[in-house]
Amino acid sequence: MTDSIGFIGLGRMGRSMAANLQKKGFSLLVADLNPEAVKALEALGAEAATVPEIARRCSVVITMLPSSVEVEQIAQGADGIFANALPGTILLDMSTIDPLATDRLSKAAAGRQMTVVDAPVGRLAEHADRGESLFMVGASDADFAKVKPLLDAMGTTTYHCGPVGSGGRTKLVNNYVAITLCQVNAEALALSQRFGLDISKTLQVLLGTSANNGQLRMNFPNKVLAGDTSPGFTIDLAHKDLSLVVGAAHAARVPMPVAAAVHESFSLARASQFGGIDFSGIADVVCELAKIDRPRVPEGWKPS
Amino acid sequence: MTDSIGFIGLGRMGRSMAANLQKKGFSLLVADLNPEAVKALEALGAEAATVPEIARRCSVVITMLPSSVEVEQIAQGADGIFANALPGTILLDMSTIDPLATDRLSKAAAGRQMTVVDAPVGRLAEHADRGESLFMVGASDADFAKVKPLLDAMGTTTYHCGPVGSGGRTKLVNNYVAITLCQVNAEALALSQRFGLDISKTLQVLLGTSANNGQLRMNFPNKVLAGDTSPGFTIDLAHKDLSLVVGAAHAARVPMPVAAAVHESFSLARASQFGGIDFSGIADVVCELAKIDRPRVPEGWKPS
Amino acid sequence: MTDSIGFIGLGRMGRSMAANLQKKGFSLLVADLNPEAVKALEALGAEAATVPEIARRCSVVITMLPSSVEVEQIAQGADGIFANALPGTILLDMSTIDPLATDRLSKAAAGRQMTVVDAPVGRLAEHADRGESLFMVGASDADFAKVKPLLDAMGTTTYHCGPVGSGGRTKLVNNYVAITLCQVNAEALALSQRFGLDISKTLQVLLGTSANNGQLRMNFPNKVLAGDTSPGFTIDLAHKDLSLVVGAAHAARVPMPVAAAVHESFSLARASQFGGIDFSGIADVVCELAKIDRPRVPEGWKPS
Amino acid sequence: MTDSIGFIGLGRMGRSMAANLQKKGFSLLVADLNPEAVKALEALGAEAATVPEIARRCSVVITMLPSSVEVEQIAQGADGIFANALPGTILLDMSTIDPLATDRLSKAAAGRQMTVVDAPVGRLAEHADRGESLFMVGASDADFAKVKPLLDAMGTTTYHCGPVGSGGRTKLVNNYVAITLCQVNAEALALSQRFGLDISKTLQVLLGTSANNGQLRMNFPNKVLAGDTSPGFTIDLAHKDLSLVVGAAHAARVPMPVAAAVHESFSLARASQFGGIDFSGIADVVCELAKIDRPRVPEGWKPS
Repeated sequence: MTDSIGFIGLGRMGRSMAANLQKKGFSLLVADLNPEAVKALEALGAEAATVPEIARRCSVVITMLPSSVEVEQIAQGADGIFANALPGTILLDMSTIDPLATDRLSKAAAGRQMTVVDAPVGRLAEHADRGESLFMVGASDADFAKVKPLLDAMGTTTYHCGPVGSGGRTKLVNNYVAITLCQVNAEALALSQRFGLDISKTLQVLLGTSANNGQLRMNFPNKVLAGDTSPGFTIDLAHKDLSLVVGAAHAARVPMPVAAAVHESFSLARASQFGGIDFSGIADVVCELAKIDRPRVPEGWKPS
Repeated sequence: MTDSIGFIGLGRMGRSMAANLQKKGFSLLVADLNPEAVKALEALGAEAATVPEIARRCSVVITMLPSSVEVEQIAQGADGIFANALPGTILLDMSTIDPLATDRLSKAAAGRQMTVVDAPVGRLAEHADRGESLFMVGASDADFAKVKPLLDAMGTTTYHCGPVGSGGRTKLVNNYVAITLCQVNAEALALSQRFGLDISKTLQVLLGTSANNGQLRMNFPNKVLAGDTSPGFTIDLAHKDLSLVVGAAHAARVPMPVAAAVHESFSLARASQFGGIDFSGIADVVCELAKIDRPRVPEGWKPS
Repeated sequence: MTDSIGFIGLGRMGRSMAANLQKKGFSLLVADLNPEAVKALEALGAEAATVPEIARRCSVVITMLPSSVEVEQIAQGADGIFANALPGTILLDMSTIDPLATDRLSKAAAGRQMTVVDAPVGRLAEHADRGESLFMVGASDADFAKVKPLLDAMGTTTYHCGPVGSGGRTKLVNNYVAITLCQVNAEALALSQRFGLDISKTLQVLLGTSANNGQLRMNFPNKVLAGDTSPGFTIDLAHKDLSLVVGAAHAARVPMPVAAAVHESFSLARASQFGGIDFSGIADVVCELAKIDRPRVPEGWKPS
Repeated sequence: MTDSIGFIGLGRMGRSMAANLQKKGFSLLVADLNPEAVKALEALGAEAATVPEIARRCSVVITMLPSSVEVEQIAQGADGIFANALPGTILLDMSTIDPLATDRLSKAAAGRQMTVVDAPVGRLAEHADRGESLFMVGASDADFAKVKPLLDAMGTTTYHCGPVGSGGRTKLVNNYVAITLCQVNAEALALSQRFGLDISKTLQVLLGTSANNGQLRMNFPNKVLAGDTSPGFTIDLAHKDLSLVVGAAHAARVPMPVAAAVHESFSLARASQFGGIDFSGIADVVCELAKIDRPRVPEGWKPS
């Protein structure tokens, strides 16, 4: 047992989160397939290590990986975490994955006197850079207390949503709404455009009624409506999250006709080669495909 | 010409709006098919009159009627407003109708040196009772100046959205978003329920991210999530507005797959006999049909 | 009273139908806004007339007009059919219109001892040219017997669907299925294309199972899959019919989520400027928008 | 090497298929988790065996399993087929699974000089009982020639759709259309019912136009419209197939809004506890939820 924290998965989000941990005084053992990413962390004082080594030496192992396939391999493979870690180890999975995979991991961990915490990340990569992420955490109270200092080093807002599995499930519910708001706003603005309305005036009304929403207030005026579709969070990633939402909904027998319609709209956006732009850009995609002028606010426009 | 204001249509909303006008010092000439409604206004000092009389004596005639059929009849019939009013009269239509009907009315009015202002009402009947309505106004600047004092007597918030026709169009865009938020929240909460999450915690997260929205913050905690589905604004009325939205979108060649999916969800809610409950109650309908426990927050719960 | 038959509305379909009637021995009185169309019928021996004249002289007046607005005007206007015709006259409306308009017409006719028969036309304009149309008829048994010889002169297949109003309603049900089949086939073939399957083999399988359908068997191999999207029946007309279907479904409280999804797909096709091509061409539109190769069968390919 | 054929998976379909093989002269080695199912095949002369034994002794091993998870385990596990079979062995997978899993299996097999044939089954369990199944086969020409006699013993119709992977992909395309037809017919008949039309007359028209389809002609009159919703193929199984279709479409970047809408309708049907009835019964579900009378034809009714 040791004070070191394991961190596996140094992609766009992971490297920033790991960097914040290391900078704020935690000693990290890190691993990634990409040697550049590992070197960048070593430059901050972290130590490169193999997965089994990390498992043996760390009481908390963080994973930040693309999908449940990678997480289950790293956790349950022959050279993986569970096969090598001491009883009492916490696997803190911060990836966004199928919640049924989290349940399987938790069950497998319990068989070895280990535990799993799921704590997927809200907000964007740029927030992770600044240590301003939001976390939705599924954990026992005891585990939550143990991982809380780590989360505090990486973000500003932490919600303890319930037992293990609750973090990922809450994230799916949350991201379903956030992504769907983009599509709803896109359709509304396309209609406003075709109606010939002044988009600034339409926005002013919507922001002043119960139609108000976080995407329209925060994301749209700064991104797509200002002509900036450089990605904070891409249409491809939004599509991936919707796939998890719709898959989980079908597994749980929850009919979600609007989720399905939004999923198909994002699928069309990907197929028509807009997958790499910011997810607020779905407003441009909807208009582009239907030959409607793109909605724009005047430079410097702010919601009053 | 005279100082009197005409008011035609004293239904649930209209009577409150007229009452506020009369109480705040305007002299009303009122008409409605329902004699009770007329008597109630007479008791406040208004004068009962026929439509032609109203047309002849009032420089502003307000209509607050169920649909474009009634508005076009009252405006354009042989005994209607246009046939009897003086040049310069303003028809201030506050009904929620097909914007193409507003365009037709405006064109017909112009042929007689009259003008139309469309100023449909936002917010609920209970706001109208208290003179706290919101108005989305389509009018020339000159007409807007003339009707502004009237609107100020009936509500607290007025948006001048553009020329005649812009008020109704803005309302459709706005109500599309507001109603769709109810459906999105309903699907999200159904998923949360089936996931076994604590609904208060789910709400807390959603209200703290870009998933935040006016329906979830204002309407849901006070209505459906508190077990109160008595109507502020019914599923039937929401369905009617969605019909106007989808119809206008098809006329304008705007594909709106999410609007269509929401329309069908509300159609199913009506068909399964939930048309009379509050539109936030769509959360209960979605759960009821899919055999999911209704989402509820503890008594007295407030978003923090 | 007279032996003459009135025919009002000589558009693309109407002129062919009228021509077949005249050629097969009926004496027609015809009217249309387009003088060319009237002249063409005069050349075949028909007589040009005004609407009131037609009403006064014909025991059966056929209308073949674009929408319920025109039919109601021609029937119920001051110079219209009902105001001028003798008791006992049959209005044989062959337009495709909102069935609630048919109900209103029928009620108005009954007040004047007249009757209405609704007999919208199935199949394409080219079938009308050859007198091979299909008719769905709503009529009393007595009226059906009277109009049957006229229908026999214009088509090869006549279904007596029930009392007045049943013809148009049956057509909506029928066209909903026929048009939706195009969209279903389009999605299936897009998937087949992206899967890299041989389209001829996919077709062969589908035509041999319960997936078989009239559009895939008859229309697709001869039209879109042969690279021919010249219109038999345009996407614009299919969109118009879907608007009637979805509108009628909402009036009747029938949730039809697939109809709504198809409606939006055709709306996108119109907006992206494919409204003028054959409705089987929706397969090309779906592929075009999603950057999928258009599905094609080898020249001369026939379903076995 | 030997003449024996391996058969793994003796569920509702598998046992009938295996029985037909054994009865028609093939010597089977069979395995299933359920000892009853194995005994029933032993009674017909088959030999019970373990998976490794089957792998060692059979040149063709048939799998008929619930999902890709089971197939991949049986094929690629330590005690599985690939680890134990001789080079040249054919894995003939007749399960309906994710086509990407078939691709993975095929690649793994190639690494051991083995091959995979995918040949999922069309038609119903009752057809399998009578040896009247339909097969959609993905295989090299050489492999197709080798498995053809086996398929001929189990069914009456075999389509060679292309190389390995084509069978499952063709089945997804086919089942998408077949299942969607049920939903389309359900909506059409619900509309017909609410319109008050005579359902027999509506059917007669639809079967006589391009709206004609295999489900409406073959399945509906004998099943749901005759009041029989006992399962040939359940709503649950149709839902499973739709999940594969929609999942594969998203992986392949094919937007399928109608597929998604149908998927949600079947999800609602499952959630409202109709999952066990025949998939034509979706017509009853749609009507039930919307409080519409169930559509029925008179006893003994046949399409003319």
